[in-house]
Amino acid sequence: MERIWTTELSEHIGERVRLAGWLHRLRRLRGISFLILRDAKGLAQIVVLPEKDPALVEQLSRLYLESVLAVEGTVVAEPQAPGGVEVHAPAVEVVSPSVSPLPLDLFRPVLKAPLPTILDHAALTLRHPRQRAIFRLSAASVEGFRQTLRSLGFVEIQTPKIVAAATETGASVFPVDYFGRPAYLAQSPQFYKQIMVGVFERVFEVGPVFRAEPHDTPRHLNEYVSLDAEMGFVENHTTVMAVLTEVVRGMLATIQERAADALALLGATLPEVPSPIPSIHFAEAQELIAKATGEDLRGEPDLAPVHERWLGEWAKRDLGSDFLFVVGYPMVKRPFYTHPDPSRPEFSNSFDLLFRGLEVVTGGQRLHRYEAYLEALDARGIDPAPLEGYLEAFRYGMPPHGGFAMGLERWVAQLIGAPNVRETTLFPRDLHRLTP
Amino acid sequence: MERIWTTELSEHIGERVRLAGWLHRLRRLRGISFLILRDAKGLAQIVVLPEKDPALVEQLSRLYLESVLAVEGTVVAEPQAPGGVEVHAPAVEVVSPSVSPLPLDLFRPVLKAPLPTILDHAALTLRHPRQRAIFRLSAASVEGFRQTLRSLGFVEIQTPKIVAAATETGASVFPVDYFGRPAYLAQSPQFYKQIMVGVFERVFEVGPVFRAEPHDTPRHLNEYVSLDAEMGFVENHTTVMAVLTEVVRGMLATIQERAADALALLGATLPEVPSPIPSIHFAEAQELIAKATGEDLRGEPDLAPVHERWLGEWAKRDLGSDFLFVVGYPMVKRPFYTHPDPSRPEFSNSFDLLFRGLEVVTGGQRLHRYEAYLEALDARGIDPAPLEGYLEAFRYGMPPHGGFAMGLERWVAQLIGAPNVRETTLFPRDLHRLTP
Repeated sequence: MERIWTTELSEHIGERVRLAGWLHRLRRLRGISFLILRDAKGLAQIVVLPEKDPALVEQLSRLYLESVLAVEGTVVAEPQAPGGVEVHAPAVEVVSPSVSPLPLDLFRPVLKAPLPTILDHAALTLRHPRQRAIFRLSAASVEGFRQTLRSLGFVEIQTPKIVAAATETGASVFPVDYFGRPAYLAQSPQFYKQIMVGVFERVFEVGPVFRAEPHDTPRHLNEYVSLDAEMGFVENHTTVMAVLTEVVRGMLATIQERAADALALLGATLPEVPSPIPSIHFAEAQELIAKATGEDLRGEPDLAPVHERWLGEWAKRDLGSDFLFVVGYPMVKRPFYTHPDPSRPEFSNSFDLLFRGLEVVTGGQRLHRYEAYLEALDARGIDPAPLEGYLEAFRYGMPPHGGFAMGLERWVAQLIGAPNVRETTLFPRDLHRLTP
Repeated sequence: MERIWTTELSEHIGERVRLAGWLHRLRRLRGISFLILRDAKGLAQIVVLPEKDPALVEQLSRLYLESVLAVEGTVVAEPQAPGGVEVHAPAVEVVSPSVSPLPLDLFRPVLKAPLPTILDHAALTLRHPRQRAIFRLSAASVEGFRQTLRSLGFVEIQTPKIVAAATETGASVFPVDYFGRPAYLAQSPQFYKQIMVGVFERVFEVGPVFRAEPHDTPRHLNEYVSLDAEMGFVENHTTVMAVLTEVVRGMLATIQERAADALALLGATLPEVPSPIPSIHFAEAQELIAKATGEDLRGEPDLAPVHERWLGEWAKRDLGSDFLFVVGYPMVKRPFYTHPDPSRPEFSNSFDLLFRGLEVVTGGQRLHRYEAYLEALDARGIDPAPLEGYLEAFRYGMPPHGGFAMGLERWVAQLIGAPNVRETTLFPRDLHRLTP
């Protein structure tokens, strides 16, 4: 008999069907037992009557939870059952037994364990319906990102992760021994996506990036998934912001389309994307914060997390928006390839996108003239020699261009209100964690 | 004026339009010059008449090739022009000049330079229309891979690339210094995709993998893009082979749909996918080869490249197929998680898919019982302790499962008949090459 999904039961009322999945829970009550079977899509309630089949109750109660079962039974409408349907008169086959008791309960609505325990046992805890819902949101986000960019003419690329030169500063890279030559793990696909603007004009990449920063905060990971895009022939950073706005809209639409049930399970609601997303200049943002909090922020080259949160609350309260662009960060805090604001060269043609008070995207316009690169590198005391393969793109004609990068795990964390980005990372890598 | 693509010119005959792109070529003939402008989609022929606009001819001839230009002009039907259309009476704006002569000609139909030179200058050479066509085939292949698997209920995942334990043997990994702890670059997402079968039953990943093998051949890379899939509740490896067949079909269909022009430019023809793809047992393949070549292959645990080529020719000649499954490789050459053939335990429930005589996919059924893992590790003398986070998946119930992995660059190389896999890799990493 062909297996069906637990979510298809209601289409088979009165029929004999075959299910397969994991022994999620066994509830033994007086005169009746409920076997809750979990498959990739959902849960099914299977009724076992000790009077009718004492051997089966006995067999099930000897099994550890998470054993893999195949169950044949008759589908019966039952308004009191979860989903309005249950399975009667089951015949159960043990496909693959679990060999130990579980270290924590998987059947409760929410996992009751400290985060490190949940992460240590990822192979088990990711099976919890809430955890699965989180990573269905990730998958839908990535799909929406790709779909939107593809519809805008962007071509997907895959660029190398072992590199000879650090993208940003030398301090925060993981060194790799590459056949005896020094190499690094790529901090971003920045150089490569810029090179590829010379090829396809519009490119994107979804891939891992590696940051060796020894941060130990709830919003930093040392390896994460970066959603990157880069485009040529822009007017300035605002062209990029307009594309990013479409991308965010597309990601939310795909989540709604593909994973509305996951959102509901997590109790999350999708934000509206205003047209356009409100935007504030960095200097103006500092003034606003200074006025409201009394802090003197003059000369500060960046926003602290507490200031981002303040701006997020302000945007929500005064502008009715979950999103806020902060533009024009000081050049001094941005990487060497950043394009200055022609009218105020101490500020840059760059932006961060804050989502509910946290930076989830960074982007901007890049330098495009070869001489401008040489000057920028010289001004920062960076040796251009190791960057020759990158600089060659600018030597041979590059249009004004820009792009952005979004951290997938942080985006999903903000979406569901997770206080720690590790909750939205399948197998996080941080200062202390390298397994599983 | 809104910019249009060069490929849209024929829709604008008689109109004044704006193009933007790179100075691909300047042909100065007696009494007429042709400016060939390249954008992301194609080429446009722009006619410059020295008599009418001597200053423009002068300006253009002083520019280096690859300078970025914006051109406004009038679209004219001209049967002799490439694409049947050209642009007259141009006004040219130099957006971003190239600052050096090119190290090689980009305007010839094929790049005339040795492969190392082409790779050294990737930032420039990738702009050649043939090179672009290759990577449009890559993008379409990946899109078809994802689309097909998604339609079959597979969920996309992203798993970590810095890992604490090697997937295969310890010898061929790149070591990483992870905050003073020993770590490696992942040779494959194998452990993680298996863990995720316990979560979503069907998963796939597109991502980089890292092999430190010091091979120096035309078919090996030290970093490549792996297209991975894994699925639960399989009968055995044949269930996986059936899914892979659908995936290959879907990849080819997407290439046809998205990149037929790229195929044509490269002179490549897509293979047919027979239903089913013919399949031969490893032992039987050895006998065939031995009979035909006189070589004694008894006891050889694997096929040599020359034998794969022989099988490819045989499959084409005798079975009319570009594809051939070789199944049942000896256990001794397969990794510890390989499921043996229950009827002949010295052989495995594994397969390779040969495409035109080269292995492009490896897959099979995996062990699923916890005890089977402990036995397999013990038999090979592998310490189970560093694998605890992986083995936990089997401790808590895993269904019979299997999957496959396909190397993207090798797949595209076979598709277009490229003799060296570096030709189908954006920025290859090999024993000698770490840049650009």
